[in-house]
Amino acid sequence: LVSSVSCSFSTVSPPATIGILGGGQLGRMLAIAAAQYGLKTHVYAPQEDSPAFDVCAAYTCATYEDQTALATFAQQVDVITYEFENIPVTTLEYLLSLNDAPVYPSLKALRITQDRLLEKEFLHSLDIPLAPFVEVNSLAQLEAGLAKIGTPAILKTRRFGYDGKGQVKISRPDAAAEAFADLKNTPACLEGFVPFIREISVVAARGRDGSFMPYDAAENVHQNHILHTTHIPAKLSDAAEQHAREITQKIAEHLDYVGVLAVEFFVLEGDGSETVLVNEIAPRVHNSGHWSVEGSETSQFQQHIRAVCGWVLGSAARRGDIVFTNLIGDEALDLEKFLTQKGTYLHLYGKSEVRSGRKMGHVTQVLPFSSTRAQDA
Amino acid sequence: LVSSVSCSFSTVSPPATIGILGGGQLGRMLAIAAAQYGLKTHVYAPQEDSPAFDVCAAYTCATYEDQTALATFAQQVDVITYEFENIPVTTLEYLLSLNDAPVYPSLKALRITQDRLLEKEFLHSLDIPLAPFVEVNSLAQLEAGLAKIGTPAILKTRRFGYDGKGQVKISRPDAAAEAFADLKNTPACLEGFVPFIREISVVAARGRDGSFMPYDAAENVHQNHILHTTHIPAKLSDAAEQHAREITQKIAEHLDYVGVLAVEFFVLEGDGSETVLVNEIAPRVHNSGHWSVEGSETSQFQQHIRAVCGWVLGSAARRGDIVFTNLIGDEALDLEKFLTQKGTYLHLYGKSEVRSGRKMGHVTQVLPFSSTRAQDA
Repeated sequence: LVSSVSCSFSTVSPPATIGILGGGQLGRMLAIAAAQYGLKTHVYAPQEDSPAFDVCAAYTCATYEDQTALATFAQQVDVITYEFENIPVTTLEYLLSLNDAPVYPSLKALRITQDRLLEKEFLHSLDIPLAPFVEVNSLAQLEAGLAKIGTPAILKTRRFGYDGKGQVKISRPDAAAEAFADLKNTPACLEGFVPFIREISVVAARGRDGSFMPYDAAENVHQNHILHTTHIPAKLSDAAEQHAREITQKIAEHLDYVGVLAVEFFVLEGDGSETVLVNEIAPRVHNSGHWSVEGSETSQFQQHIRAVCGWVLGSAARRGDIVFTNLIGDEALDLEKFLTQKGTYLHLYGKSEVRSGRKMGHVTQVLPFSSTRAQDA
Repeated sequence: LVSSVSCSFSTVSPPATIGILGGGQLGRMLAIAAAQYGLKTHVYAPQEDSPAFDVCAAYTCATYEDQTALATFAQQVDVITYEFENIPVTTLEYLLSLNDAPVYPSLKALRITQDRLLEKEFLHSLDIPLAPFVEVNSLAQLEAGLAKIGTPAILKTRRFGYDGKGQVKISRPDAAAEAFADLKNTPACLEGFVPFIREISVVAARGRDGSFMPYDAAENVHQNHILHTTHIPAKLSDAAEQHAREITQKIAEHLDYVGVLAVEFFVLEGDGSETVLVNEIAPRVHNSGHWSVEGSETSQFQQHIRAVCGWVLGSAARRGDIVFTNLIGDEALDLEKFLTQKGTYLHLYGKSEVRSGRKMGHVTQVLPFSSTRAQDA
């Protein structure tokens, strides 16, 4: 139906099927966005109670190593994307080798961003500012790293870290052995501690044609290492926001990226101006972009679908100032206040079990614009 | 999870399952709205390519007469609703007799609104203004009716009429026999022709607790008897809009209604003021309310889910002035302009086959408020 959407690549048109690797709330919201555009989705995930299974035209419940299931999946879809960065690289390589459906974002993006060390080396090679870092595969390397970077520092596993898992802060050099043992000798990366005053993220999309569309920077507050609230506009100088956008675009281009990505930054203050350092890259739609469903002209989920389908990107203009709150664990038990509050939109992810630290849903408030700068966005 | 939502009836809370009878685009958009609130849906429909099957946790493809399938369906859901008015009354009666899950809207609402004559008699009994009408089961009744009502008049089948199907205009008394033959002797209703200047609709929700929440009246333009565009605010006096809302509330109360309904009105002008006559009632979410997904704080689909689940109703406040356009048949073939136009939201229903007169999708434009009256809404 969208055969007339002009694009230098072949486009994916309704009622085509988008294959989504991963079945969490991100996959769920991607599937809903695809449906709004008349597209079907086929979700592939190993967990039987995957939230995205409830909103897709088809699903496969199988491991990422199951080549038979992967091959059947690839034959049934028109394009493949993924909703989280811990899909095995070998899974994507296998899907690409089948040549049944294109895969976006790129294999390169997945490979680099799922390994903290590769990601930092990639950023460093592009002269993108980030905290000092050292590869750590042994206690000796850790001690040498601490001598170079100083304390406090943070030791993080190279892979599978999220929401504060797989990391330990080292306040004094003599705590090295304990920290290394804590991470069970896993290949790791030592990062210098950055005295940031604020954390922000830039969520942005890159189309198949190289077009780039960033959302306004989001100011993020974490609690227990989990995103708690996001405010937009962020408290941030115009110059720093512009720099963060430029860095995000540079990253996207050098990853041959297609789809939505997020770059998290630390904001530092000094000499009366703000600077930004990259914290990490998420090769997917991002928690700090969920506000865009009601708060932007194009949601990050719709934007990702447009990008991977080869459609023109939509406007990322905001519809107001944003206060976004995650509902973590039992915060999702008392919801009535969110159902009646002006300009307030409640989302729940359909997870049957409330667990401490589990993201159960979120609330987006869209408020009147507070500044002329915001309205120009 | 929503156990704290206070209500005089037992409420349906995530991750409960909503059963939806009917699998068209209305069921599809209801299923998406339910998912956004963390609820599962089970869609029951006889057509294999039902658009709603692509976005639900489970579906049953069976006829409305299949009691085995209906019984299994009823056991698997926590509340039952319907997306169109031509579900057989016997189907709802059977589901109610099982006592497995409550059914909203009421059986009474379905029975009355699926029969044009019963609906008009119901409205007449409430002293609600409507065009003159006469029951027609024979040519003699038709001729007597024409003598009473005059010409032009419109002969409409009592049941299964939609988008102009099942109706014929009678311009002169001597065309009676041909008109009656056109409708193949089907039980019908003769309506006096009303010299309306405009058509409007009021989409509104009634909660299980009797709370009532109308959207602003929509001004509707039809082409070939199919809704083409909707504008809000409607060109309508405050008094006439208020009257239309009061009539809608009266209808909802006398149908023991729970959920979203729509009442279509003719607007007449005379003596410098406007009056409204009821055209027909739709016991479901309505095409002239689709704009509410991006144009209101609570979409009609979310509002219907809230109502049938026993939740508090949400705000029906608009987020701007609305221009809504259906994409009929091949209007859905050239979509790029809708993907980039400011404040414009494209929806497609996932129908694989483009057919003349078929509703393929819609486009909602949310524009800045044009009047202070609108902003107060």
